[in-house]
Amino acid sequence: MPVYDYDLFVIGGGSGGVRAARVAAGLGKRVAIAEEYRFGGTCVIRGCVPKKLLVYASQFSEHFEDAAGYGWTVGETEFDWPTLIANKDREIARLENIYRSGVEKAGGATFRSRAELVDRHTIRLVAENRTVSAETILIATGGRPNPHPALPGHELTITSNDAFHLPELPKAIAIAGGGYIAVEFANIFHGLGVETTLIYRGAEILSRFDMDLRRGLHEAMERKGIKIICHDVFAGIEKCGDGRLLARTTKGRELVADQVMLALGRTPNTENLGLEAAGVATGLVGDVLVDDLSRTNVDNIYALGDVTNRLQLTPVAIHEAMCFVETVFKDNPTRPDLDDVPTAVFSQPEIGTVGLSEEAAARKLGDLDIYRAAFRPMRNILPGREERMIMKLVVEAGSQRVVGAHVLGPDAGEMAQLLGVAIKGRLTKEVFDRTMAVHPTAAEELVTMYQPSYRIRGGERVA
Amino acid sequence: MPVYDYDLFVIGGGSGGVRAARVAAGLGKRVAIAEEYRFGGTCVIRGCVPKKLLVYASQFSEHFEDAAGYGWTVGETEFDWPTLIANKDREIARLENIYRSGVEKAGGATFRSRAELVDRHTIRLVAENRTVSAETILIATGGRPNPHPALPGHELTITSNDAFHLPELPKAIAIAGGGYIAVEFANIFHGLGVETTLIYRGAEILSRFDMDLRRGLHEAMERKGIKIICHDVFAGIEKCGDGRLLARTTKGRELVADQVMLALGRTPNTENLGLEAAGVATGLVGDVLVDDLSRTNVDNIYALGDVTNRLQLTPVAIHEAMCFVETVFKDNPTRPDLDDVPTAVFSQPEIGTVGLSEEAAARKLGDLDIYRAAFRPMRNILPGREERMIMKLVVEAGSQRVVGAHVLGPDAGEMAQLLGVAIKGRLTKEVFDRTMAVHPTAAEELVTMYQPSYRIRGGERVA
Repeated sequence: MPVYDYDLFVIGGGSGGVRAARVAAGLGKRVAIAEEYRFGGTCVIRGCVPKKLLVYASQFSEHFEDAAGYGWTVGETEFDWPTLIANKDREIARLENIYRSGVEKAGGATFRSRAELVDRHTIRLVAENRTVSAETILIATGGRPNPHPALPGHELTITSNDAFHLPELPKAIAIAGGGYIAVEFANIFHGLGVETTLIYRGAEILSRFDMDLRRGLHEAMERKGIKIICHDVFAGIEKCGDGRLLARTTKGRELVADQVMLALGRTPNTENLGLEAAGVATGLVGDVLVDDLSRTNVDNIYALGDVTNRLQLTPVAIHEAMCFVETVFKDNPTRPDLDDVPTAVFSQPEIGTVGLSEEAAARKLGDLDIYRAAFRPMRNILPGREERMIMKLVVEAGSQRVVGAHVLGPDAGEMAQLLGVAIKGRLTKEVFDRTMAVHPTAAEELVTMYQPSYRIRGGERVA
Repeated sequence: MPVYDYDLFVIGGGSGGVRAARVAAGLGKRVAIAEEYRFGGTCVIRGCVPKKLLVYASQFSEHFEDAAGYGWTVGETEFDWPTLIANKDREIARLENIYRSGVEKAGGATFRSRAELVDRHTIRLVAENRTVSAETILIATGGRPNPHPALPGHELTITSNDAFHLPELPKAIAIAGGGYIAVEFANIFHGLGVETTLIYRGAEILSRFDMDLRRGLHEAMERKGIKIICHDVFAGIEKCGDGRLLARTTKGRELVADQVMLALGRTPNTENLGLEAAGVATGLVGDVLVDDLSRTNVDNIYALGDVTNRLQLTPVAIHEAMCFVETVFKDNPTRPDLDDVPTAVFSQPEIGTVGLSEEAAARKLGDLDIYRAAFRPMRNILPGREERMIMKLVVEAGSQRVVGAHVLGPDAGEMAQLLGVAIKGRLTKEVFDRTMAVHPTAAEELVTMYQPSYRIRGGERVA
C-alpha cells in the first residue's frame, strides 16, 4: 500500500478549493493546497466581492441625485478612482488572508505556487521545484475571462480582471458581451461617471434569464444613459493618434473609448496543468469532465467549481466542495444539488431570480399562471425617478407550485435568496397568498398578486 | 323586509374600510363609505407611508458619510424640512385621491363627513346633517395616538400625527415610548440631524420582539448618537423662558428639547360613535369587540382594523376586509388568519421578523435549536461603519420546523416578507440548508448556518 505525502492535495485556492481543503483538514486529513496567484480565487480577488464593492461605490451618484427629492441639498461631489481601488484592495487583502489562514488553522499546508500534475498521484510545485504526492487530488483551478485572440487588436482590450486595477477611470468605455459580467460592469462604470456603451451579439442582454427582466433592465439602463447595441460585435480594435481606442463593429459602427473591455465568457484554467500526464479527460472548452460526484475519469482525481464548467457560481463551488468531502472523506456519496439555484445580477436595477423563466417553464411545463407586477418602488417617488420594479411569479397551473420567481429592482438579490427557500420547499402559490404583507415594502407585491396577470396553456399565452 | 339605502355602509376610510367598500362595490353591492378627515387613514395619511418617506430622507446622512470610503468627496450638505414635508404631502394627496376614487370607480359612494350610529341600521352623516340606512354596517374608524392626559404639561407635547407636519425641524427632541413608532421616529429625527433622546418605562425597547434584536438595535442606535433612557418616564413637561421645553422624569432627570413627542400606544376611535345607541359592545380600551368573523355583538354590524385592537397593522386590516367581504357578501365565512404575521420596524438598522421570538418559542415549545449570525454587512466595510447585522432562525428541535426568523440590518423588512412565506409554508431548517446561497448578499447567511449556535431544552439554554 503506497504512502503518499498527503491524503488530499487541492490545486487552486478559490472558494471551492479552500473550502474542501479546510473542511478535510478539519476532519484530521493530511491536506495541502496550492495557489499560484492569490488565495480567495476569482470570487474574492477579482470577482463577486470586489465587484460588489464597486457596485456600492457606483450607486452613490444616484443617492446624490435622489437626495433633492427628500429635501437635501448636496454640494459638489467628486469621485476618486484610486481611493476606491486602494480601499477595495485593502479589504481584498484582508479576505485573502482569512482564506489562507483558515486552511492553515485547520491544519492544512498552503503553497503559494503553481501546481501541475505529473501523474495521477504526483504534483509538481513549480515555485519550489519539487514534487509531492497525494492519495486524492482535487482540481479547483477555476476559470478566467476569454481573451478572444481572434479579434484584431484584442491586445489593446481589457477584461474584468484588469478592470479592478485600472490606473485611472476611463472617460469612456465600450464593453463587449451580454452576460452578467458585461452588464454589471456597464452599470458600475456608468454610475462612476464613465460614458458607457455595451455591445452584444444577441438579440437581448442576459440570455436565459426571464425575458421580462431582460427587457426591463435593458430599458432601465438606457434610461440612465448607458448605450446598448444588440445584434453587433467588435470586428477590430485599433489605437488612435490621441491614445484612445477605436472599435469598429461588423455592422460598420465606430466607437471611440479610452478602454475596451471584453466580457465574452470564461475559459476553464486547464492549460499545462498536466491533465494528459495524469490521464484526466477534458471537454470541448478545456473543462475537466466529472461525474455527478465530481469525480474525473481517473478515480482518485476530482474536480469542482468553474473548471468543470457546470454552474459558474461561488456558492455552487462551495456546495460541490462540501459534497466532495462527504463523498470522499465521510463515506457518504453526496451529489451536488444544482436544481433551482437562486442567483443575482448586481446590475442597477438589480436582478434576483430563481427557478424557471417564463419561457423555460412554458417549454417544459406547458400550462402556467403568470403573476406579474410592475411599479415604481416607493423610494423612487419623491426623487421623481421613473425606474420601475418588476416582480413575477411563474406558477405551474396544475400543481399551483411556484416554479420561478423573478425580481428586477432594489434588493432583488436579497429577495432571490429567500424566494429560493420557498421554491426549494416546493411551495404553492396559495402559501404566498396566505402570507401577510409587510407594509410598506417592495416584496409585499410578491404576496399580494391574487389574480394571474395572464395564463399560458400548451406553451402559448392565452389571456 | 326592510329596504335600506345601502347594502353596506363603512365608517372610516382607512386601508381596511376602503378595501371592504371597494371590493363590495365591485360585487355590485350598494356601498357607501364615510371619512371625517382624509381617505387613506392612518397608513396613508399619518402612518406607514409618510413614515417610510421620512425614513428614506433620514438615511441620506449616512449615505453621505459612507461615500468617503468608496472614494467620493461630498460637498456641504444641507437638509430642508419644509421641502421634505411639501414633497411628502404631494405624494400623500396623490395616494389619498387613489383611495377615494378607487371606491367611486367601483360604484361606491364616498362621504367626507363624520358618521355616527343612530341605531343598528341608521347612520348620521354629521357634515350633511342627515341620516342614511344600511343593511350591514362596518366600523373601521381606526385609532389614534394616546394623548396621555394624565401627564402634567401633556398639552405641550406632540404625537406622531403632529410630527408629520411640524413647521420646523426641532434642534432637539425627546420621545417617550419604546414601541416601534417611538423607535422609528427617534431614528428619523436623528438621521435628519436632530439631537434625539428616547425614554422608555420598560427594561428594553420593543417589547415582544426577539431580545437579541432589541439589544442589537438599542446598541446600534446608541452608537449612532441617539440617547436611550430605559426604566424611566416623564413626570411633567413645562415651558422654559426661551420657549424650549423642559421634561422632568420620575427618576429626577431633566431633559431640555424643542419638542417632546409621546408615542405611548394608540387608542381605538370609538368615542361618540353611537355604539351605545346601536348596542355595540366595546372592550377595556374602547375597542370594538368582535368575534373571529369580525362581527360585533350586533349581528349586522362588523368591525375591523385598528379599532378592534387585534393586530394594528395595515395588511391585517386589509386581510380582515377581504375576509369580511367573503363572509358577508360571498356566503363564505372566512376567518382572518393572524398566525405568523411578518412585520418590520423601519428603524436604522431595520428589523424584520416573523414567527416566534426565541423567548416566546422557549416558553411555548421548550426544545429549540437556535441559529444565529452577527456580522458587518459588506456595504459597511469600506466606510468603516461598525454596525452589525444580526440574523437568527428559531427552530423547533423535534420537528426541525423554522418557527421564527429575525433579522436586524439593511433590507430586513424585505427579507421578513419572504421569510414569512417560508414560515407560512411550515418549512424545516433542512430546506434552508438545501437552498443555494446567493453571493454576495446578506440574506445568504440565512441559508448557510449549518450548525446550531446554541440549543434550548425544556425552555433553558443548554449550550
